[in-house]
Amino acid sequence: MKDANTLPDVQLNTDKRGVELHSVGVRKVLIPLAYKTSAGESFLAPTECSLAVSLSKELKGTHMSRFMTLLNQLSSKEITDFNPQSFLSEIKETLQTDDSCLSFKLGFAITKPAPVTGLESKMIYDLKIQGLQDQSGENSTIFDILIPTANLCPCSKAISEYGAHNQRLILKVAVNVDSKGKYPAYWIENLILALEEAGSCPVYPVLKRADEKYVTERQYDNPKFVEDVVRDAVLIAKQYPNVIGFKISAEAQESIHAHNAWAQYSENFPNLGKRLDLDS
Amino acid sequence: MKDANTLPDVQLNTDKRGVELHSVGVRKVLIPLAYKTSAGESFLAPTECSLAVSLSKELKGTHMSRFMTLLNQLSSKEITDFNPQSFLSEIKETLQTDDSCLSFKLGFAITKPAPVTGLESKMIYDLKIQGLQDQSGENSTIFDILIPTANLCPCSKAISEYGAHNQRLILKVAVNVDSKGKYPAYWIENLILALEEAGSCPVYPVLKRADEKYVTERQYDNPKFVEDVVRDAVLIAKQYPNVIGFKISAEAQESIHAHNAWAQYSENFPNLGKRLDLDS
Amino acid sequence: MKDANTLPDVQLNTDKRGVELHSVGVRKVLIPLAYKTSAGESFLAPTECSLAVSLSKELKGTHMSRFMTLLNQLSSKEITDFNPQSFLSEIKETLQTDDSCLSFKLGFAITKPAPVTGLESKMIYDLKIQGLQDQSGENSTIFDILIPTANLCPCSKAISEYGAHNQRLILKVAVNVDSKGKYPAYWIENLILALEEAGSCPVYPVLKRADEKYVTERQYDNPKFVEDVVRDAVLIAKQYPNVIGFKISAEAQESIHAHNAWAQYSENFPNLGKRLDLDS
Amino acid sequence: MKDANTLPDVQLNTDKRGVELHSVGVRKVLIPLAYKTSAGESFLAPTECSLAVSLSKELKGTHMSRFMTLLNQLSSKEITDFNPQSFLSEIKETLQTDDSCLSFKLGFAITKPAPVTGLESKMIYDLKIQGLQDQSGENSTIFDILIPTANLCPCSKAISEYGAHNQRLILKVAVNVDSKGKYPAYWIENLILALEEAGSCPVYPVLKRADEKYVTERQYDNPKFVEDVVRDAVLIAKQYPNVIGFKISAEAQESIHAHNAWAQYSENFPNLGKRLDLDS
Repeated sequence: MKDANTLPDVQLNTDKRGVELHSVGVRKVLIPLAYKTSAGESFLAPTECSLAVSLSKELKGTHMSRFMTLLNQLSSKEITDFNPQSFLSEIKETLQTDDSCLSFKLGFAITKPAPVTGLESKMIYDLKIQGLQDQSGENSTIFDILIPTANLCPCSKAISEYGAHNQRLILKVAVNVDSKGKYPAYWIENLILALEEAGSCPVYPVLKRADEKYVTERQYDNPKFVEDVVRDAVLIAKQYPNVIGFKISAEAQESIHAHNAWAQYSENFPNLGKRLDLDS
Repeated sequence: MKDANTLPDVQLNTDKRGVELHSVGVRKVLIPLAYKTSAGESFLAPTECSLAVSLSKELKGTHMSRFMTLLNQLSSKEITDFNPQSFLSEIKETLQTDDSCLSFKLGFAITKPAPVTGLESKMIYDLKIQGLQDQSGENSTIFDILIPTANLCPCSKAISEYGAHNQRLILKVAVNVDSKGKYPAYWIENLILALEEAGSCPVYPVLKRADEKYVTERQYDNPKFVEDVVRDAVLIAKQYPNVIGFKISAEAQESIHAHNAWAQYSENFPNLGKRLDLDS
Repeated sequence: MKDANTLPDVQLNTDKRGVELHSVGVRKVLIPLAYKTSAGESFLAPTECSLAVSLSKELKGTHMSRFMTLLNQLSSKEITDFNPQSFLSEIKETLQTDDSCLSFKLGFAITKPAPVTGLESKMIYDLKIQGLQDQSGENSTIFDILIPTANLCPCSKAISEYGAHNQRLILKVAVNVDSKGKYPAYWIENLILALEEAGSCPVYPVLKRADEKYVTERQYDNPKFVEDVVRDAVLIAKQYPNVIGFKISAEAQESIHAHNAWAQYSENFPNLGKRLDLDS
Repeated sequence: MKDANTLPDVQLNTDKRGVELHSVGVRKVLIPLAYKTSAGESFLAPTECSLAVSLSKELKGTHMSRFMTLLNQLSSKEITDFNPQSFLSEIKETLQTDDSCLSFKLGFAITKPAPVTGLESKMIYDLKIQGLQDQSGENSTIFDILIPTANLCPCSKAISEYGAHNQRLILKVAVNVDSKGKYPAYWIENLILALEEAGSCPVYPVLKRADEKYVTERQYDNPKFVEDVVRDAVLIAKQYPNVIGFKISAEAQESIHAHNAWAQYSENFPNLGKRLDLDS
């Protein structure tokens, strides 16, 4: 009978196909991740994690259980800086590789006041954190945020006697930031609040009638195509501290069609296809 | 060595736990299904199928490969009547059971003219066909349709100096119909076209500027809460031939919030929880 | 110009269509919800909420902002009992209706030791809490849990010289419980741990080689069809405290097919179609 | 009153923000698309389309209705060559732009014989066609295919007395092909059939007991890590006609975990981030 202490380690076998793998690891791991919100609350959120390293062409396989051990250790510390670079260094050391990359998806909570009554309520945004350390020395840190906002169509307003179609719009922003910076919760919160102004008017969880009147009229006074939303978001992102590149798209869930209108722009955004592409 | 001709048939073993299973079968099977559109075109659409029968408490298991054989045979015939009852009878005979149920999900295409220019274009709706034959003698046939339309908020219009928020709205209609009826493509098409009038204005694939002006103004002239959309859809469904019950909901993708407004009504709609619940 | 203090309240208008709506409210609201795990940790998890009440046939509409205010208040309290009935009573009082229902979806974390090495790691399960208070006096409380486990096919084992196909299996359990009971985190945790034994072997986040050997052999020694998994889960659920009914299904992501094998059983499970059907 | 013949054309206004947009268009458009299968059958499949062009920095907006008109025209022709380049040229001419890109997602049907009994059944694969024509003169044509197959873990087999865990594995292959080539249905079909051999054993819609015995034993005789599956798929793709680059990943839905094991490799694969990124 096989002895548990001398079980063979197949992963260490030699591989002869000559293919170095850019990324080997685990995907869609759900762990609780603790972080501190800008309001000082502790958030212990379910987080979907992916983690990968490179594998040299001589080795048959990697040891997947070590990725899980690393992720499990991470879930017991509270994050106050969302920069993933120190964790990536730890991965490289533990797994003895030259490259490491990760992706964390979680809900990011912000307290928003209604525009007229000032009533406060919480809204949660989808946040994805991506990090990469490459043997070439290239380090990347990327924050991906989905920001629900709205747009009112300038064409519809111009051609109609009254009214104008408007709709929910998803502003998708991936910012490539300085890997040496610090990224506490308020840095992300302020980025979201700045960018959502690129639409015709932000959206809110709680709106009383006086607020709804304001939002309706603000949208009508501030018509924007998806093209306008992207261009204005570009100008906002360019001025935000530590941002060195971005990919920005706006997708409007048209209220006159069953399909969506869409525009996109990118600048100084790294090609993630080779290594850091954990979610494709 | 085991002989392929005398392989044991474990499914036929006796079970002693005393639990009769209401539904045993296959889910999320993708097959091509051919049907005739109301315009006479042949549509060979990828269809997601689920199929189940009951299993007596004495039997250990069912033979899953027989379900697949039946579905595969079905994919070679063109459907001109969407009523699934004759196929359910065939299933019961082939699998020698007292009960059978199925669910088919496919895209259903309609040609729609734009409201002013009359430009024609095709739009595809999610259609789910559910069928049940129960040993109690109860037969059910249900058509589930997702109809994208739009609503303009009456409150926003009433309280604002100008404009009114509007948004895409998904009208979800499940109609419980006479199992002895015939349901050609035009029966489903006309049901969709009738029901989409329950919103503030239908949506279209192609709209030129004159059409967009019409749709914008029509929405503004015809404001509706989700509550109004459901109530109007109820009155429409009640008058449609062969409809004996329904469950109708409206979900508006609010352009002033990141969440949705929702209303629902049902009448004479069967409890599908016990048997026909293939997609829960 | 319209005065914000005297804005018209369109929702209070009289409706003449004669249709009482069973459910009117909000869906897909994301709020942070705090709860105490069985290990005593505070979890502040993003939670997808739906909330609805009935609307009498005389009234045109409900006030959606009040639902959001209620949900926002809820997000500031820590839950130690997952029974939603007291919150439902509060909703009925605040919104002055006879019926209320809700659905909360969140991630539920459990610490699991690996079967041989005992290495601890956290695993997160999808939990949905549904509650209903009906004017008829009928109160319902339902917990819906998705439990990933695995099954090894008895037929494949019996007919093959060696090996047997196995695969991940999703055990979906909805338990209808006594609405007057208390449901702390450990009640849900123990239910999950009991039910996951219905598969061929539980799954774990972290497994070292000695653990993997155990899980592989345990699966092979304990082959089960989806039918077996459901029947064994039924016997487990019947003995669990406060459970008065359930709907249980097992869906195996077959490793020899691209489709799934599936079985289902239900007993004393309420028809949720009329009112509490917020997620259909 | 505004005259429909003289409605203003806001899109033609001048923009002063100085941002040239790489991609402006429509997303998630559902149209029926007709194609000829390798068996000669006509398939009229619901297809999710995205279409975009660039927009110069001087122009405020594009005319979205023209995209829909183009897509609608496409839906009336039967495709016998899946190369999208001639359609991209037509788009550039109609919309008078320097760049165009598109993405089509549809179900691709293949008839497969069971490995022992030879019983034929149809299986449908997710196929995405991406095309790009760039003002720089760079043309790209990419086929993305999701191929369900399976793998049996070499480590589990080596360390266990009997059995070995196996599971469904999704092989995701994006091939970058010669844009001047022809790509009839059989070219795609043969690529799928070649690549699915990279797993431990292909999967099939219909399997009788003799087939199931074969598949079980074949998996056990042919154990593979996700790393092995990717490396073998790389060697296969390299030899396939007209393939000039690829990105290949394997994701195993582990039957001993609730998360997935994953590996990826890419070579000569274009950076689609700047323009052709319609689905991100």
